[in-house]
Order: sequence, then structure tokens, then C-alpha cells
Amino acid sequence: MSLLDFFLKSRKENTAKLAKERLQIIVAHERTSRSGPDYLPQLKQDILDVIRKYVQIDPEQVSVQLDKKGEQLSVLELNIMLSDEKQQNAENSEETKS
Amino acid sequence: MSLLDFFLKSRKENTAKLAKERLQIIVAHERTSRSGPDYLPQLKQDILDVIRKYVQIDPEQVSVQLDKKGEQLSVLELNIMLSDEKQQNAENSEETKS
Repeated sequence: MSLLDFFLKSRKENTAKLAKERLQIIVAHERTSRSGPDYLPQLKQDILDVIRKYVQIDPEQVSVQLDKKGEQLSVLELNIMLSDEKQQNAENSEETKS
Repeated sequence: MSLLDFFLKSRKENTAKLAKERLQIIVAHERTSRSGPDYLPQLKQDILDVIRKYVQIDPEQVSVQLDKKGEQLSVLELNIMLSDEKQQNAENSEETKS
């Protein structure tokens, strides 16, 4: 199963429950014995910061999971539900303009 | 199957071939009809930039895939093979210090 198939499958399940805008980010870091320190916790914050350049994020709508599987694999998972508010405001201001 | 299981499975297959340091990043953006423009192409560059804060990236060792499935789902996949060079240099300089 490809990664895309996996997301399509998980999306189908979620869409049935709730049709909303959503960003899901997975960072998997496979490390070797000579890898430096684990930077995923810092990277998490950096990624949230760059996403804020494009969309408004409500901190309460962000779920973060950081899993370590032994010494060699760290997986960071971010789930961000995006509010419709910004898009609605953008639509309204366009309507006002025209 | 959870996302972590999925990565563990794909990792097992890869590890058999090659034991190297690797970062895999997936960004799935589920959009609604009122979503704004697709920002994943720009986000790709931003994410590479923040990763460079932590590790050296050889542009030839980065593979990028951007899939669109209809209007509502975009999936960005980044695969980054990390060179051991930096870690080796770090180890060498530590040896020199001690």
C-alpha cells in the first residue's frame, strides 16, 4: 500500500464523520547510531510557525504526538483542524469589494 | 492500522536494503470548497529550510512528490536521505578536543 493510498483510506473514514479543512503532518526520522541529538521536538514548533504563514491555527485544534520506537525511529504526528473563519472573512471582504 | 504501524512496516522493508539516516515528511491537506489557494508547494520549501537548521541536506538526496486527488486532497511527500558526513565531522572534532 502506498502512502497516498493510506491517506485516502484514512480520509474516507474521517470524511464520513466530519467534512472540515484539515492538515496532517507526519515526520518520520530514522536514525543511525551516529546520529546527533533528536530534533523533532524543536522541528514541531518550526513547522507550526511556517504553517502560520498560510493559515490561522487555533492552538486548541492542534494535536501532537511524538512516538519513539527504540533508539532508531522517531515519529512526529501533527493533526491540525483548520477553522473556516479566515476563509469566511476573506469571502466577505471580497463581497464588500465588488 | 495506525500511522506508526505503517511507518514501522515501511521502515522494516527499507532497513533490509540500506541502513542510513533518513527523514520522511508527509503533509496531507484536506480542503473544503471554501479553502483558499493551495500552499503546499510553498510549504515544501519552508519545511526544507527549517530542517536545514538541524541537519545538512544534499539537494540530490531529496525526493519530492506532490499528489492531488481531486479538489479536496493534496499530499506532499518529502524523502530526505541524510549524509553521515556531518556526524562524522562532529565525531572527529570531538576526538580532537579530548
